[in-house]
Amino acid sequence: QIRDAIAQRFNAGPLHGVRVVLTAGPTREAIDPVRYISNRSSGKMGYALAAALQALGANVTLLSGPTNLSTPAGVLRVDLESAEQLLEESLRAVAGAQMFVGAAAVADYRVDMPADEKIKKADATMSLTLSRNPDVIAAVRQRDAKLFVVGFAAETEKLAEHARAKLERKKLDMIAANWVGHGRAFDRDDNALSIFWNGGERELPQASKSELARQLASLIAERFLAARN
Amino acid sequence: QIRDAIAQRFNAGPLHGVRVVLTAGPTREAIDPVRYISNRSSGKMGYALAAALQALGANVTLLSGPTNLSTPAGVLRVDLESAEQLLEESLRAVAGAQMFVGAAAVADYRVDMPADEKIKKADATMSLTLSRNPDVIAAVRQRDAKLFVVGFAAETEKLAEHARAKLERKKLDMIAANWVGHGRAFDRDDNALSIFWNGGERELPQASKSELARQLASLIAERFLAARN
Repeated sequence: QIRDAIAQRFNAGPLHGVRVVLTAGPTREAIDPVRYISNRSSGKMGYALAAALQALGANVTLLSGPTNLSTPAGVLRVDLESAEQLLEESLRAVAGAQMFVGAAAVADYRVDMPADEKIKKADATMSLTLSRNPDVIAAVRQRDAKLFVVGFAAETEKLAEHARAKLERKKLDMIAANWVGHGRAFDRDDNALSIFWNGGERELPQASKSELARQLASLIAERFLAARN
Repeated sequence: QIRDAIAQRFNAGPLHGVRVVLTAGPTREAIDPVRYISNRSSGKMGYALAAALQALGANVTLLSGPTNLSTPAGVLRVDLESAEQLLEESLRAVAGAQMFVGAAAVADYRVDMPADEKIKKADATMSLTLSRNPDVIAAVRQRDAKLFVVGFAAETEKLAEHARAKLERKKLDMIAANWVGHGRAFDRDDNALSIFWNGGERELPQASKSELARQLASLIAERFLAARN
């Protein structure tokens, strides 16, 4: 109805001309020049979503941690490694953007003092002191209260509760949540998502990540246009 | 006839019938179901070496950490993640083998008690206690004193000194050493190697990893046959 009307009006797609910044993939936090801490994100969901939003007419800038994926056609990609780099690039990229989608699996902690040379193994045990990384999506929201901000949550328990809490705490416009761990979601080609926003939710059942991305992109466009009007 | 027999054997390759176990890629040490510690090894050098040894006639079993590489034709590949899994698979695979090549970048430390559920970020700092991983190549050497064992060393300083020390300490037959860090070796398609053995050494100058692998495989075959006769 609203969606159809708008799609008709904009033959080029409902997000025609909308500037979207999307983060994807894991980040890496250096321990030394060789070792790092990372996570099991493959970046597939984020890349598929970048392609799907681009297909709806958006101008997508993809801020990507290390992945082995090809850049979707028509998408501008910026490569980075750490959460601090991601924060810096995000704040730079959202100037003039209307939407931010935080699909990257940002490391929550970084190593306090990465070594300049490879640490030689010496002792039977070793202790790493980690510090909280900046909260990229919260910083982006704080920078621009009018931006339409979509977050992700990867949970191993209490999915809806954790996701709704994150939606409110970070003042997001939408959040897409999925189960992880024990072979679910990461490093796989399919997934399922629960989407929450203020006053609504939708379940996107198990499907390929590209199919899920198309459904999620539609829903994002719908909520974005509703929020705008 | 003897000459023909030798020619025939060499037509089949100098390592015809030799069973080789080769480890490649990084290992991953779980922090929780989502996060892990790893290193910048791409596995490219190990995979190229597996292909080059196979081309010389060897029967190669490739024990591989997580990589995005295709299995070389004719090579049997076993996938694994952690150093402890690599140790277990190595000890299993070397039964009946004549050569072990440890090209994997094995994590020196593992996390003491990986969490069963994703650790929620709570505190401003977090401390990880790590324990030394088993030394795979030393364990393999200890299991079979007759095995021809080739090690690798990735160094950020004092390359020859560290490599020679490792050769002697672990009773290796050969060691291939390269510089790492600051954009060298890892995640690249070319590399340079310094090869050391008891009473000799050779420099293999900067070349593609597949070319280097062919040169290293030749040298390995040469030293292996010399040690055997």
